[in-house]
Amino acid sequence: MSLSKNKIKYIRSLKDKKYRNINNTFVAEGTKLVFDLLKSCKCQLIAALPEIINSNPNIRSEEIIIANSEELKKATFLKTAPTIIAVFYQPEFKLNRTNLKDKLSIVLDGVQDPGNVGTIVRIADWFGIENIICSEDSADVYNPKTVQATMGSIARVSVNYTDLSNLLNEYSDFPVYGTFLDGNNIYYEELSHNGFIIMGSEGKGISNKIINYVNNKLYIPEFPAGSASTDSLNVAVATAVVCSEFRRR
Amino acid sequence: MSLSKNKIKYIRSLKDKKYRNINNTFVAEGTKLVFDLLKSCKCQLIAALPEIINSNPNIRSEEIIIANSEELKKATFLKTAPTIIAVFYQPEFKLNRTNLKDKLSIVLDGVQDPGNVGTIVRIADWFGIENIICSEDSADVYNPKTVQATMGSIARVSVNYTDLSNLLNEYSDFPVYGTFLDGNNIYYEELSHNGFIIMGSEGKGISNKIINYVNNKLYIPEFPAGSASTDSLNVAVATAVVCSEFRRR
Repeated sequence: MSLSKNKIKYIRSLKDKKYRNINNTFVAEGTKLVFDLLKSCKCQLIAALPEIINSNPNIRSEEIIIANSEELKKATFLKTAPTIIAVFYQPEFKLNRTNLKDKLSIVLDGVQDPGNVGTIVRIADWFGIENIICSEDSADVYNPKTVQATMGSIARVSVNYTDLSNLLNEYSDFPVYGTFLDGNNIYYEELSHNGFIIMGSEGKGISNKIINYVNNKLYIPEFPAGSASTDSLNVAVATAVVCSEFRRR
Repeated sequence: MSLSKNKIKYIRSLKDKKYRNINNTFVAEGTKLVFDLLKSCKCQLIAALPEIINSNPNIRSEEIIIANSEELKKATFLKTAPTIIAVFYQPEFKLNRTNLKDKLSIVLDGVQDPGNVGTIVRIADWFGIENIICSEDSADVYNPKTVQATMGSIARVSVNYTDLSNLLNEYSDFPVYGTFLDGNNIYYEELSHNGFIIMGSEGKGISNKIINYVNNKLYIPEFPAGSASTDSLNVAVATAVVCSEFRRR
């Protein structure tokens, strides 16, 4: 059996959010990532070189196709064709008060770059943050670039998209943190064990309509103080420094 | 005057390290980055839309070419053609004991991804780390992707390539830090104000021949402790957390 033109077309269609949503699926590539996701995500389709299939007889997938390199090359989103491509069903994560209460969650306000969103999912996984809540205009977590950047963390961290004003109105009793150039030095601030950490978009930071919800403005100090010659840290890098500060307390 | 085929060919040739080294130049694109670099780097060539040239009469470059979008589209390394493309001379940074003494420096041991190297240069700039020293097999800092990721920090942070064993033998009196899965919790360690912080490659970490030089093994704890389900943090993200820890003391 080989990977048909139709299947290749289907896999490639999943580059578009539209088709990912219609099918409720997403693509992951490469042995490390695919086998990591197989532990927890339901798999619709595996296409892989015969040696991969043969040496892993326990792969669970609705469909398993032995493919050749040429076919994988046509289907891949990567520069170099992987030995395995998989289509997984999007995991279902529900947002509710019990899930969020007494926990820290990351809120992404318009983060545009799929790689940044993927790296942030990986950071959340490392620092034990179970929930990421994104504004509707943030990059889609099932974008192939994001999926690759998460390195499997996508199966362990719940990522939801919602209207952030509604969310913050509903949870108005939660502490809300955000990073600002005029915020308080994060190294000296009291940081709670629960609440929302809002990270803004790469170009514009936290949007105007969301700023008012922030009741704890934080700042990651440059060194030496007052020397800042670079505008800011990359949003994923800033997220990591902030999460590390919350967790070291 | 327009951007000739030969100039386009020259700009595009600078995607290759070989041609960057022959010419001692590199490419930067987009107004924000180019104008930031113009403050401190010597410029060989500017190609830009007429409105950019006309509204910036003080641009200093050996050659200034008014180009149209079609020409910029042919020359660019970006997905969307920028309004300005510049070729700069590589800044000269010298590595010597006076430069390194009493300072923290970042040492990259085989970091492969140009984007990661660029992000690390930006992190160094934020945290006031003036020197980055890379193994010869690390990604080239003048790769177009790296240059774009540095967001201008490339002009302020000295990046050198050298044999790391020689370096660490020469500076054997310096404290040498590295991150390891079996290292000591970085939140509780004493961290000096000087020395080398070694960051390993994305896939393999710090190489075997370099490990022996590390006299302070550090670990960024996952949360909750012992739960690590993701293998590691991205190298740029880990660099940021480590630098932040050194600077908060």
